[in-house]
Amino acid sequence: MYPAVPDPVERLIEAFSRLPGIGPKTASRLTFYLLRAPEAEGLELAEALQAMRRDTRLCSTCFNITSAGADPCALCADPQREAQLLCVVEEPLDVLAIERTGQYRGRYHVLHGVLSPMEGVGPEDLKLTELLKRVESEGVEEVILATNPTLEGEATAMYIKRQLEGQPLRLTRLARGLPSGGDLEYADANTLAQALAGRSEM
Amino acid sequence: MYPAVPDPVERLIEAFSRLPGIGPKTASRLTFYLLRAPEAEGLELAEALQAMRRDTRLCSTCFNITSAGADPCALCADPQREAQLLCVVEEPLDVLAIERTGQYRGRYHVLHGVLSPMEGVGPEDLKLTELLKRVESEGVEEVILATNPTLEGEATAMYIKRQLEGQPLRLTRLARGLPSGGDLEYADANTLAQALAGRSEM
Repeated sequence: MYPAVPDPVERLIEAFSRLPGIGPKTASRLTFYLLRAPEAEGLELAEALQAMRRDTRLCSTCFNITSAGADPCALCADPQREAQLLCVVEEPLDVLAIERTGQYRGRYHVLHGVLSPMEGVGPEDLKLTELLKRVESEGVEEVILATNPTLEGEATAMYIKRQLEGQPLRLTRLARGLPSGGDLEYADANTLAQALAGRSEM
Repeated sequence: MYPAVPDPVERLIEAFSRLPGIGPKTASRLTFYLLRAPEAEGLELAEALQAMRRDTRLCSTCFNITSAGADPCALCADPQREAQLLCVVEEPLDVLAIERTGQYRGRYHVLHGVLSPMEGVGPEDLKLTELLKRVESEGVEEVILATNPTLEGEATAMYIKRQLEGQPLRLTRLARGLPSGGDLEYADANTLAQALAGRSEM
């Protein structure tokens, strides 16, 4: 039998399907959308994909994504950002999330993952040695361990805490509690327990 | 201020955002996924996008998508498919959906849209003249009007019905009723009314 869709279409459906959260139905929908869309739209996506790989690097200081020509990255190079305050996150997306608050004036360190014995991710797979070096050489006074509030994120924060023991600095962790705009009724027991434990005076 | 993400990253996020059903959050997630994924994955997607545009055409008979070298398409060229039975659909994706049933042995005609005065889509924007020509020249005995069960799909089916009036052929429409696996309780009134009206002997 002949295939129901021509090979080039099948190939694009498969390429989309490999992306996380994109199932075969969404992949088909995107592909058939692009078949009808102005040609420029699909080609711009193709070129953006190629350009991203070609024109980005990891900052050699904080390991966030940076443009090919900008190392250290704009954030690390900014004298306005406090070098004494270092926020440790799992992924570049987390930097984006914290920057969006507009409330943070320190610098970052991106681990590129969390410790996960189950998935074979050990300390040597993360940017941990680099973190310890920075803490010693950059005069950091506070390290905010902003790994995710998950089992693995907590374990990674604990691991870093042990590694930094004896250093003259404050180690902090993001507050746990009810999400803003959230509903007490729908909060899970764990979140609610932490919101209780962390309650503050009004 | 510097941007929170480098330009090449921003560009890819924007390109993804333009796809239907992909919001800014999903676009960021996909982009940052590709930053971490093996390089080949993003490049394969880029090449698949370019290849699809380069290597596909519309079949000059049924107007379904076909490979650049295959016109008429494999389906139109297959002598096993009944030429007397013609299924009219809105989009190439609909051909795929019907082929997936494995129950249809006729041919297709893809309109590439539906009549929509609101959006300025008139008969001349669809492959309607081509449909009428085929019906006359290919000895078609039954036309299944498989446009969507929506207002516009129905209107388009009615329009085609009027155009084909006087031709010695059967005109049919896909059955309306409860979806398989569906729940009566959750069916909308319209669907339920049509399921009632179309009830059959057991």
